[in-house]
Amino acid sequence: MSLTGAMFLGSERRTGQGPALDPLDPRTGASLGPAYGSAAASDVADACLLADRAAPALRATPPDRRAAFLERVADRIEELGSALVERAVAESGLPAGRISGEVGRTTGQLRLFAAEVRDGGWAGVRIDRALPDRSPQPRPDLRQRQLAVGPVAVFGASNFPLAFSVAGGDTAAALAAGCPVVVKGHNAHLGTSELVGSAVAAAVRDSGLPEGTFSLLFGAGNEIGQALVADPRIQAVGFTGSRAGGTALMRTAAARPRPIPVYAEMSSVNPVFLLPGALRDGPDRLAEGFTGSLTLGAGQFCTNPGLLVAVGGPDLDAFLAAAAARLSATAGQTMLTRGIRDAYERSTGQLAGTEGVRELASGKPGEDGNAGTARLFAVDAEVFLRRPELQEEAFGAAATVVVCDGRGGGEQLVQVARALHGQLTATVRHGPGDRDTAAELLPVLETRAGRLLFDGWPTGVEVGHAMVHGGPYPATSDGRTTSVGTLAVQRFLRPVCYQSVPADLLPAALADDNPYGLPRRLDGVREVVRDGGRPRE
Amino acid sequence: MSLTGAMFLGSERRTGQGPALDPLDPRTGASLGPAYGSAAASDVADACLLADRAAPALRATPPDRRAAFLERVADRIEELGSALVERAVAESGLPAGRISGEVGRTTGQLRLFAAEVRDGGWAGVRIDRALPDRSPQPRPDLRQRQLAVGPVAVFGASNFPLAFSVAGGDTAAALAAGCPVVVKGHNAHLGTSELVGSAVAAAVRDSGLPEGTFSLLFGAGNEIGQALVADPRIQAVGFTGSRAGGTALMRTAAARPRPIPVYAEMSSVNPVFLLPGALRDGPDRLAEGFTGSLTLGAGQFCTNPGLLVAVGGPDLDAFLAAAAARLSATAGQTMLTRGIRDAYERSTGQLAGTEGVRELASGKPGEDGNAGTARLFAVDAEVFLRRPELQEEAFGAAATVVVCDGRGGGEQLVQVARALHGQLTATVRHGPGDRDTAAELLPVLETRAGRLLFDGWPTGVEVGHAMVHGGPYPATSDGRTTSVGTLAVQRFLRPVCYQSVPADLLPAALADDNPYGLPRRLDGVREVVRDGGRPRE
Repeated sequence: MSLTGAMFLGSERRTGQGPALDPLDPRTGASLGPAYGSAAASDVADACLLADRAAPALRATPPDRRAAFLERVADRIEELGSALVERAVAESGLPAGRISGEVGRTTGQLRLFAAEVRDGGWAGVRIDRALPDRSPQPRPDLRQRQLAVGPVAVFGASNFPLAFSVAGGDTAAALAAGCPVVVKGHNAHLGTSELVGSAVAAAVRDSGLPEGTFSLLFGAGNEIGQALVADPRIQAVGFTGSRAGGTALMRTAAARPRPIPVYAEMSSVNPVFLLPGALRDGPDRLAEGFTGSLTLGAGQFCTNPGLLVAVGGPDLDAFLAAAAARLSATAGQTMLTRGIRDAYERSTGQLAGTEGVRELASGKPGEDGNAGTARLFAVDAEVFLRRPELQEEAFGAAATVVVCDGRGGGEQLVQVARALHGQLTATVRHGPGDRDTAAELLPVLETRAGRLLFDGWPTGVEVGHAMVHGGPYPATSDGRTTSVGTLAVQRFLRPVCYQSVPADLLPAALADDNPYGLPRRLDGVREVVRDGGRPRE
Repeated sequence: MSLTGAMFLGSERRTGQGPALDPLDPRTGASLGPAYGSAAASDVADACLLADRAAPALRATPPDRRAAFLERVADRIEELGSALVERAVAESGLPAGRISGEVGRTTGQLRLFAAEVRDGGWAGVRIDRALPDRSPQPRPDLRQRQLAVGPVAVFGASNFPLAFSVAGGDTAAALAAGCPVVVKGHNAHLGTSELVGSAVAAAVRDSGLPEGTFSLLFGAGNEIGQALVADPRIQAVGFTGSRAGGTALMRTAAARPRPIPVYAEMSSVNPVFLLPGALRDGPDRLAEGFTGSLTLGAGQFCTNPGLLVAVGGPDLDAFLAAAAARLSATAGQTMLTRGIRDAYERSTGQLAGTEGVRELASGKPGEDGNAGTARLFAVDAEVFLRRPELQEEAFGAAATVVVCDGRGGGEQLVQVARALHGQLTATVRHGPGDRDTAAELLPVLETRAGRLLFDGWPTGVEVGHAMVHGGPYPATSDGRTTSVGTLAVQRFLRPVCYQSVPADLLPAALADDNPYGLPRRLDGVREVVRDGGRPRE
């Protein structure tokens, strides 16, 4: 298909009449065309109205039908083929291999959510059967299920133009829950968004679902996003981006006449605790792993290791020397946008100018003017503990090493762990002799992060059942959930109880004969359901 | 035990040095003594510090131990015997039978949560096993569980001095999750709170748990509650009360440097749709059921039926005449406090003075000066749809009948349903010929309420697995949850993922051999676990 610059308002293609956005090649700053006109407030309202009209039908679709729709979205994305990869590479400056991988992750994610919809555990069915003879009072028939909340606003993320954008994790989870989606496309990959939008819209059509199931808006500035979150028909928000952007949406959502949940994934420095035994395990291998994780995708990962914590001494010095050598030899990589690179320069400049912060290494400039140079800083734990601003994320390939005092057997490591703000991840690398320190760190870190990992690096977020990509504020706006993995469906559901509803009026999900084969609790006991002879649980 | 007026700061009894609160008999306004000194800001901080210190140990308790503790709390409450019932009757003005029943509900609730803790489904264990040979990238070992958030602030409710107060639903759910609790006792039942507080504190001691597991503060005005919610160590809030009180706590929680969830159950008019077939079923029986539900406990139930919706005509007239006759003959019952009665007088007065609102009946005065008189109003649907303020709760035995136009086959009933704000419950009473209207109402009402019930009355909230006592704003601050029933535990948990954590460091809940016998998903598949030969699911 050829790009038009038009939005998707359900099945209608409409060109925004507001200020036009120009898709740029971040390497050169050259326009890639076409122009994307910004939505007007009336476009936002129209998209939300369509979504609201689609909500009852989508909420009531049988799981199989919704699953087939998600699979159809994946198929339609695959049909875009190399055109999608080429456009995403041009718009993001990311290498083709990474983008191809991300297409696979996006379609795999849609198919995983399809399987999860069929599994049906998300429906949370609980049936407490009537006890008409109970004394002193009979118990009525009570049936609980999780129900789609309604239209969801999704904001595409700059750093995952596919896996966390138009048909990314938030969209997949909302559709899986049975919620219509209105996406505000990210300005850093407009053409990619239009291509993926066409795939989703085609899948809606193919699947015979109401057109309001999916809309895609474009818009310069923040007004369109704010208007979307303020629209009374929107019931929840999925966002991945900056802390400033996320907290602005939180404020708008909380100030509505009827506040709604905001699931914003915002910022994290992903501390890595390098325990003494791990530092003794050869500085080169450790440095290779660290610099690889730090500079992956120009450091533009939510989970890149922006903070190392270790006890000072010769082993740390050897590691830092090896890491500094590697980083100094690393050429800068193109960042996603000029704005992101400017912000990276500002935050690393600020870091470099902070009293007590030493610069250990700076990478080589990149091939183009929009490359971000990797940087490594160090600071003593005592200073770090006094300056909470040192925990702020510099989005890009920059890390700070917090050097702890070795006295008291790693006591200061635990002190630093306790002082941490909410994080997406926290890593412990340990070796011989570190067990006690690791055991002391774990119960602290599990209260600070959504994911705790041992002896690896935090980049690389598996899309599965057990993943948590979330964490306490300010890593996210809402630490009760995850934005990656199947648990993410729960963000767009709420429980409803049906009391004494006659069998012929009960939703199918709650019927005695369990036509959807959902896992259930009957009087508190998990049922063993067999589906064509295959044990379901 | 004799009452002292002192607070519980962990194991310490401390008398608040702030303005003293006087426990009053609501019937007479006479003091019941002793004086309860208000907490100072430092008392709040001390309680939160104790709770914060207790949090790691409580979070790590094996399910069996936490369950035994909850059962011990129930035992200790039962040991209070008639002294508890007498005090609660004196402080609340509620009849002894109701209070005895509520003691049973409170202890039953604690034991149900104990059973739920042992069941372990709340732990949400998911294990995605490592796939070291997966291509292009290996999958690491990933294990997810739900973890206690930490100290929870609980506000006792005026209208359930036991079941939703010091050791009520919020406290039971938070303790079940493994969270320490700091209760702000309600000023309307101070002595009852002290008695129950002594039972919880004793159970903490009996169970060898850290003293900060439970604290109980008293305080005049709103300052103590606000300070509690603002304390950085508090991680979540449970509240049942007025909309003004709930939204004030929401604002405080959202304005913290690190915002936290507030679970406030605030207000609901619990609409009851009386469909034509139900109206034909004899006006007297219907009127008996309605007035019984409306006036139960002086109408001081969150779920009392404050709004009836029906199509006008002779059947409705007959029902209203029967209901008016019953209500006119009903003597007013003592309300919980002077303040609650004053607020009831104000809101019903306002309702009576609203243009288009007709008063159908007013009950007889009660025996004492603090009795609330039952009142019944009517308004045409057309006026109701124009005036959102008619949806505001008048806490007490007052109801408004919304009279719909019969043209269009009940179309206006559905219009009223669509216009409803968030509710705890929505009821449909139907009879022969009403199936289509009921089927049209159900998908609308399930988006407006936490519980949908047919052919009953909304008062009477079963404490079980399938109950939802919640609903969209403004019924609650957070419609994703319930404050009654076992699902309520989830409010005080957040998911954490453990990646490649060595077996000897993994929390027991996630160990391969499943020492707690928790229900799990292994690679997405629900395990069938057998516990001593008994199928667990």
